Amino acid sequence: MAQSVLLTGAAGRVGDAILGGLAHEHEWRFLDRDPPTEEYPGEFVVADVTDETSVRDAMDGIDVVIHLAGDPRPEAPWDSVLTNNIDGTRTIYEAAVDADVEKVAFASSNHAVGAFETDERTPGLYRVHDEFRLDGTELPRPGNLYGVSKAAGETLGRYYHDEYGISVVNVRIGNLTKGHPPIDYERGQAMWLSYRDCAHLFDRCIEADYEYEIVYGISDNDRKYYSIDRAREALGYEPQDNSAEHD
Amino acid sequence: MAQSVLLTGAAGRVGDAILGGLAHEHEWRFLDRDPPTEEYPGEFVVADVTDETSVRDAMDGIDVVIHLAGDPRPEAPWDSVLTNNIDGTRTIYEAAVDADVEKVAFASSNHAVGAFETDERTPGLYRVHDEFRLDGTELPRPGNLYGVSKAAGETLGRYYHDEYGISVVNVRIGNLTKGHPPIDYERGQAMWLSYRDCAHLFDRCIEADYEYEIVYGISDNDRKYYSIDRAREALGYEPQDNSAEHD
Repeated sequence: MAQSVLLTGAAGRVGDAILGGLAHEHEWRFLDRDPPTEEYPGEFVVADVTDETSVRDAMDGIDVVIHLAGDPRPEAPWDSVLTNNIDGTRTIYEAAVDADVEKVAFASSNHAVGAFETDERTPGLYRVHDEFRLDGTELPRPGNLYGVSKAAGETLGRYYHDEYGISVVNVRIGNLTKGHPPIDYERGQAMWLSYRDCAHLFDRCIEADYEYEIVYGISDNDRKYYSIDRAREALGYEPQDNSAEHD
Repeated sequence: MAQSVLLTGAAGRVGDAILGGLAHEHEWRFLDRDPPTEEYPGEFVVADVTDETSVRDAMDGIDVVIHLAGDPRPEAPWDSVLTNNIDGTRTIYEAAVDADVEKVAFASSNHAVGAFETDERTPGLYRVHDEFRLDGTELPRPGNLYGVSKAAGETLGRYYHDEYGISVVNVRIGNLTKGHPPIDYERGQAMWLSYRDCAHLFDRCIEADYEYEIVYGISDNDRKYYSIDRAREALGYEPQDNSAEHD
């Protein structure tokens, strides 16, 4: 069933992948702080996620929010992630709850758990026969302050779910690249997410029934240290790509 | 061995309990945004934890930081916990790392996991024969935005530990009351922390060797749904009190 979906941070790479697959599948509204440089298949609101009034206006009549907006730089300074990622995500949840939105899919990140990649574990971790897996039940171990902000966003979602009943899925997005996986970069191949698997995964976030979930967003790569079992079980995610097939 | 300890938020209740037991055990420096209203056994710096320069000055020559400062109200509004608890804790960690502080003990809270107390689990959860236990390995489930801020502080500690090697212990403090446990309040009795157990627990945070820990700070109550096993194992915590003995 077509849903009314608000996509924040629409102009970024994840937004591009999602629209590449789902432009005609749902009724879209977009929010980005920069004006659009191309055609979008729906209303485009130019506003910052920290602008509470604009966010509330953009939430009107929306069933599902895909919240991608925020400072996407792993090396982003603290003040920026505090404002854009932590405070901005709280603004989204407040507005979503008040607008009776059913579901929020939050773009979390592999950086929320980047410090599991210790010197002892790498590079073995990135290779096919290594059996270490993160499955989303582990406590965060951010590799940078950007990762701290994403873990904080996941915890905000937990609170808004428990307190207000809104469905929340946190997608710890791996390494999203168009066309083919990163070349000569084992880590990137292990956490590759293809564009079509990305679109399909967020389609499942729009369509599936769930309470509160943390899932990893990667393709079905032979190399992997993130489990995609929970994405399969909770969302019905069925990835089609595998970085090994592009070697 | 006497350590040089900076106690932030010194004028609060947890600071009162700690100093009641440990005033003469360590070399103390205090930081609070309000001027002292009584004698303190060491230098007292009047500064806000968000004042980076003052925090850096207060950190000079310090071995261990006990970071209690922050908005302590479970019902505190978001803007206050974002600034005082999340941003303030980040300021403490930055200054601690730069000053080569060895350990930070962070006053986390039962509110970081308050939403585990669902309608289905309570009030059974608060009673002696209920076997449900939280042990610190579970993902946070904050019951309020204050709890979200405490969970974020724990994640900040994880990052600063992994990135800079500083030892970090997060103490999810229960219900600290002086003299006797809360009366006619099962939940409070289940998470009671006596003043002397509180002082002893933070003494162990100063003295013990650890990497990164999340422990529950409660007395050895017959009623409990927080495990104190990890506090015993990682810190050598040996509580002397039990809310059942005050019935």
